[in-house]
Amino acid sequence: MQNFDYCNKTKIIFGKGTEGRAGIETAQYAKRILLHHSGGSTVRSGLIDKVKDSLKKSEVEWVELTGVQPNPRLSLVRKGIEIAKKEKIELILAVGGGSAIDSSKAIAVGAVNDGDVWDFYERKKSADKALPVGTIVTIPAAGSESSISSVITNEEGPWKRGVNFQCIRPVFSIMNPELTYTLPPYQTACGITDMMAHIMERYFTKETNVELTDELCEGALRTIIRNARKIFSGGEKDYNARAEIMWAGALAHNGLLDTGRIGDWASHALDHELSALFEIAHGAGLAIIFPAWLKYNIKENTPRLARFAAKVWGVDGAFYDYEQAALEGVLRMENFFRSIGMPVRFAEANLDSARIPEMAKRAVHFGAIGNYRKLDEKDALAIYKLAAE
Amino acid sequence: MQNFDYCNKTKIIFGKGTEGRAGIETAQYAKRILLHHSGGSTVRSGLIDKVKDSLKKSEVEWVELTGVQPNPRLSLVRKGIEIAKKEKIELILAVGGGSAIDSSKAIAVGAVNDGDVWDFYERKKSADKALPVGTIVTIPAAGSESSISSVITNEEGPWKRGVNFQCIRPVFSIMNPELTYTLPPYQTACGITDMMAHIMERYFTKETNVELTDELCEGALRTIIRNARKIFSGGEKDYNARAEIMWAGALAHNGLLDTGRIGDWASHALDHELSALFEIAHGAGLAIIFPAWLKYNIKENTPRLARFAAKVWGVDGAFYDYEQAALEGVLRMENFFRSIGMPVRFAEANLDSARIPEMAKRAVHFGAIGNYRKLDEKDALAIYKLAAE
Repeated sequence: MQNFDYCNKTKIIFGKGTEGRAGIETAQYAKRILLHHSGGSTVRSGLIDKVKDSLKKSEVEWVELTGVQPNPRLSLVRKGIEIAKKEKIELILAVGGGSAIDSSKAIAVGAVNDGDVWDFYERKKSADKALPVGTIVTIPAAGSESSISSVITNEEGPWKRGVNFQCIRPVFSIMNPELTYTLPPYQTACGITDMMAHIMERYFTKETNVELTDELCEGALRTIIRNARKIFSGGEKDYNARAEIMWAGALAHNGLLDTGRIGDWASHALDHELSALFEIAHGAGLAIIFPAWLKYNIKENTPRLARFAAKVWGVDGAFYDYEQAALEGVLRMENFFRSIGMPVRFAEANLDSARIPEMAKRAVHFGAIGNYRKLDEKDALAIYKLAAE
Repeated sequence: MQNFDYCNKTKIIFGKGTEGRAGIETAQYAKRILLHHSGGSTVRSGLIDKVKDSLKKSEVEWVELTGVQPNPRLSLVRKGIEIAKKEKIELILAVGGGSAIDSSKAIAVGAVNDGDVWDFYERKKSADKALPVGTIVTIPAAGSESSISSVITNEEGPWKRGVNFQCIRPVFSIMNPELTYTLPPYQTACGITDMMAHIMERYFTKETNVELTDELCEGALRTIIRNARKIFSGGEKDYNARAEIMWAGALAHNGLLDTGRIGDWASHALDHELSALFEIAHGAGLAIIFPAWLKYNIKENTPRLARFAAKVWGVDGAFYDYEQAALEGVLRMENFFRSIGMPVRFAEANLDSARIPEMAKRAVHFGAIGNYRKLDEKDALAIYKLAAE
């Protein structure tokens, strides 16, 4: 086990009706905020009106910035920064999923640091201050509600880049599972895949003595799989199933599962190129990449892959053949993703495999990717090809 | 799943050599501190000298208060409060196990609140402010290093009473598993039992849809049991085994495993009377009480007890008979406790069973105890008797 520091200060306010606490929680930090959301479902569902009522009751003023979309855009972030500076904004309140939250985090950084905000995402500099960010989560997926991550797309490339700064961890996050009842099934499935990928990226580590976090990862994955099956068997409004998924999504990315280990993250890098070139949802891209990544690494610590197959996918643990068990696990994962409507091959998402060489080159733009196994352009090419087969 | 708020701001600094960061971490909060510890093994091991060197380097001054012992005493707490006020102390740095930390928390409360500190423990009032507490953990057991709990013994009763206040959660905790290599086996075993009890108290809940936290509890218990066996099979200096136990001990009591559920806590209340009357170590008392509590509740949601037996103790999950499976789990738990040198009956710890009626009366001093099943004096009596059989 490696040495680690761990501290997560996000206050989670979880449960039915908790969006009514938006004003009280916000008022502890700010009297004038930027209210940042899509302007679509957040308005149609009546959620934004409830949030505004709550803000009013706590005498919090807001400026509204709508238009957040999946793979949130740098151009909107720049607009938000301009507003935040001009309007003397004290906190950014994100209402939505990972896109609204990541966009809010980028605005929070840009509002109090000089220079171009994209420089942070290009790894030219690091941020140690930002405006406080609060969130009201409507899509359990990214885990951005208590993470230090933000991923933004620069339309000019297009480039999709992420940062990890302690200062952008939300100060509070309101999570009401009821708000997720009306998510389209595709979005629910993308979210489930995303949170599973967050756990798997951490699970696949070279570190060998991390038993507690291995157990936590496996338990969280089993919980997600079991409750996803409930939701996709007519349980769209099953509060408890939605609650398990939502809480697991936060846990997946709040840092606890990183303690003592270094995760892999190659699959995220490989997916970023899919999202950037094809506008495919992050979760769907991961459902395509992850099985291919596992197959490509089948000889890389096969017993660990076999354990994953046994503990998470219920493959018989008394292995005669580690590799066979591991491959059975990958097959079950693919079946699971397909069962919730996710694509697991390029063709199933209508992606053009002719662009694979270009993506492979882009994926290693900053150098080799992954830690479980370092991947170069040739490896990236091979994994994309497996995903296109 | 119940609504919940969750926020744990303790910064964990975990790993080899981390005691060298005592000064840097302390200096972020204070320039003048109370250094609180036993004055025994903390000195003999050379740890306190290392801590003092680190404090000096960061220009932190200290006043020292030694003499903390297991089941920390109110009289020493009162002395600490007097010093803290007189010396204008800004932070209490606990070096030790749960006793040093709980004593430090009590001093932290008493130093900035008027009136008698025991009134808080008598539930006459609640605290919302305290001096910051930092810790350097030498015994993984109580989980006090990132919890809101403090348990103090008033020698005049003797009474053992606990409080839970957000304001006493340590601001940082330094955890180096190497510091636990030289613990006497009995203390290691008491600590292991204590942390397992913390998880089991939370696990046994009436709440039915808490799958994620059920999984986390079970995984943490399995990790503790597996690594305890390593330590007690010649692995006293097995860094990774010590690290798994130490990190699990913090997780057991940091609040995460409470989310969405109400724990039981009757066994802790029953053990408090054992500790108060017989001076038995908290962990050893729990090893005696918990199996008896389980047996007494064998008809209380038997499938849940059977699941516990299967998932934690490896009892065959394909039950023909829930009750039989549950009882097999209790038997395996007793065998495990005995294998690490814990008593599981009154006689094994030379406790006088003639005082059982007195203990049963005292245990329900504040009213019925427990949430999985409410227990009155008659129930407490029956459980103590089962533990004495």
